[in-house]
Amino acid sequence: MSGSVSPLAPKTFAEMPPVRGVRMATAEAGIKYKNRTDVLMMVFDAPASVAGVFTRSLCPSAAVDFCRQNLSGGGARAVVVNSGNANAFTGVKGRAATALTAQSAAEAVGCSTGEVFLASTGVIGEPLDATKFAGVLGDMKDRGREDFWFEAAKAIMTTDTYPKVATRSAEIGGVTVTINGIAKGAGMIAPDMATMLSFVVTDADIAPQALQALLSDGVGPSFNSVTVDSDTSTSDTLMLFATGAAAADGQARIEDAADAALDGFRAALNAVLFDLALQVVRDGEGARKMVAVTVEGAESDAAAKRIGLSIANSPLVKTAVAGEDANWGRVVMAVGKAGEKADRDLLAIWFGDIRVAVNGERDPAYSEAAASAVMKAQDIAIKVEIGLGSGTATVYTCDLTKEYIEINGDYRS
Amino acid sequence: MSGSVSPLAPKTFAEMPPVRGVRMATAEAGIKYKNRTDVLMMVFDAPASVAGVFTRSLCPSAAVDFCRQNLSGGGARAVVVNSGNANAFTGVKGRAATALTAQSAAEAVGCSTGEVFLASTGVIGEPLDATKFAGVLGDMKDRGREDFWFEAAKAIMTTDTYPKVATRSAEIGGVTVTINGIAKGAGMIAPDMATMLSFVVTDADIAPQALQALLSDGVGPSFNSVTVDSDTSTSDTLMLFATGAAAADGQARIEDAADAALDGFRAALNAVLFDLALQVVRDGEGARKMVAVTVEGAESDAAAKRIGLSIANSPLVKTAVAGEDANWGRVVMAVGKAGEKADRDLLAIWFGDIRVAVNGERDPAYSEAAASAVMKAQDIAIKVEIGLGSGTATVYTCDLTKEYIEINGDYRS
Repeated sequence: MSGSVSPLAPKTFAEMPPVRGVRMATAEAGIKYKNRTDVLMMVFDAPASVAGVFTRSLCPSAAVDFCRQNLSGGGARAVVVNSGNANAFTGVKGRAATALTAQSAAEAVGCSTGEVFLASTGVIGEPLDATKFAGVLGDMKDRGREDFWFEAAKAIMTTDTYPKVATRSAEIGGVTVTINGIAKGAGMIAPDMATMLSFVVTDADIAPQALQALLSDGVGPSFNSVTVDSDTSTSDTLMLFATGAAAADGQARIEDAADAALDGFRAALNAVLFDLALQVVRDGEGARKMVAVTVEGAESDAAAKRIGLSIANSPLVKTAVAGEDANWGRVVMAVGKAGEKADRDLLAIWFGDIRVAVNGERDPAYSEAAASAVMKAQDIAIKVEIGLGSGTATVYTCDLTKEYIEINGDYRS
Repeated sequence: MSGSVSPLAPKTFAEMPPVRGVRMATAEAGIKYKNRTDVLMMVFDAPASVAGVFTRSLCPSAAVDFCRQNLSGGGARAVVVNSGNANAFTGVKGRAATALTAQSAAEAVGCSTGEVFLASTGVIGEPLDATKFAGVLGDMKDRGREDFWFEAAKAIMTTDTYPKVATRSAEIGGVTVTINGIAKGAGMIAPDMATMLSFVVTDADIAPQALQALLSDGVGPSFNSVTVDSDTSTSDTLMLFATGAAAADGQARIEDAADAALDGFRAALNAVLFDLALQVVRDGEGARKMVAVTVEGAESDAAAKRIGLSIANSPLVKTAVAGEDANWGRVVMAVGKAGEKADRDLLAIWFGDIRVAVNGERDPAYSEAAASAVMKAQDIAIKVEIGLGSGTATVYTCDLTKEYIEINGDYRS
């Protein structure tokens, strides 16, 4: 575990207001360590609409399999999240563990196991002893509080150095609704659908299909545009719940994601997702600098994103950033290996506002001093103009430092 | 630059015999630094058959473009290799530099520029001052020696900590021929066709088309199966030359790669390529351990290779190896993200001879102590059985250590 907080951490944390219709509690179940908070339970007063996106890993965790199965029901009463054990690559025992955990949660809440959602994070391959949940979930249900968001975010941390919270409000048909989100993640971050664990809850009244459409659209430029180390987790889970409590204020239930009444909500939701995703990158294991890579002029948006991720995942680009070296030759290398159409003689590259290369060679006005000055900053923008089309994308990453090696060479996460 | 020799370096270097028909010399042209050997010239007494494979980067160096163009001629009289400047992303100036270098070499040797081959390694994006070659190539031609292989390998090193040489002999129709090779490379190693720079010369008499077929086949399980850091160079160049001097001993010229007389030669050539490729991995920047990743039971050989490279390129697998941690959960993660068909419940994983996982869960006989003992070794074998088909592949990599960060955060290569 890293001892100190990331230098890229937010200077202040958002004040998290309650979201009507959901209560939370944490407990020490002793999953891996004694005397450590390792379980979070969210309970919805009434069935909430639910949407989710999950890892595209072909070896997903038992909890991911379980959530995928329940998602078709569209309703949620409880969410149980544990740290210390990912319940991934645990085979038949893994399925037994999710079944038993869901059973314990259903009994505590008084709902069906089809309304329970689960997420686990921690060691891969160790059997998860789910009997440990049975003793704590009933009590957690009784202790549930609305004003518990910050504590909830802390409870799901593993190698994270700070809790990740975000909140926005929006109006739907004149009724104000709140959107709160929490996330965890610092390593094994290269989401191909969602990243590690993130839970977002709103009191808006939105039907499950519309909620799923909003989430699937929102994940592209947020969680699916960040990478810490190119490694995709078995447990990536992003879920969005709508309690519908705003119906009491007269908010008419939304059935269709294309409903114009959702415009403000969609923007606020996307802002929450983007805020959380960037907090994950800023807590990247060993990170000292944040890098935004923008690719313009590619053949398509998809091509731009692939080139952007090739740059953002390149160990040589990331170590150059760590060394404050304006090494744009490595950016050229990463463009070249991306496998998307590129013409060396049309490329232009910027570090911050400094254009370092143009028309297939070093910018005639290139100044090593000016480029180096840009690299001293904590937040660094790299822009590449491909010059072939109108495809654009921006992806986010952090630098690669000795601390990343230290964290991952010592800690079996 | 790394100060000390890789602990994975060969304990002894091969004695390199002369190869009839080729002479070499090195010089200090002052490309980047003063008083440092930075140019190698190889001169063939008569036109040698030539074959080559190059980077699949879409932003290749000017030297790679130049070689690709000359390859169709099929004959080589001279090779000029420089370090200190990659002549990549140098646009029109880059093409002018290759033209001028080839002109200088052609004048020195008395051949056409179409019989000259070039390779450059070093900084990307800096214009290469090719006028510096004009003064040294004529003298180098006169000083050329047959017994200069070890010196030649030393002359092309950059972040390499030891020179890479390999030699084998074979019989073709009862005539003994020699195959010598040299290579350089330690970082930016994820060949998609060849890696960095490698030159192999034989005195066998083999036509260019047959030579190309031999090389294209041989590169798959050797240079194209190694990775240090997943970054593909703009300059990857592997060339094979056949001087034909063995014709003087009565070796009948081979026109077809399928000729049965080539069986022994093919095996010897593949051994040279494999030997050099593994030496590149063993000199991986910051490497302390060598890892062989074998994947069996995949849907196809191509699927097995993709899964193998996903494991070999995973920063989390590589840092676990550096930390001597038998963290097979990260191997599962890397299998899952590879995008090839895999079924968690059929997977089995070995570290060395220790089976750590089987049928989608931890091996019942798993012993942390036994698995950890395997990780203490310098050479580590990881085997994954996918359980779906008969596709197999083995790829080679090294661990990811703080020294890699140090080398690449400080040095503009």
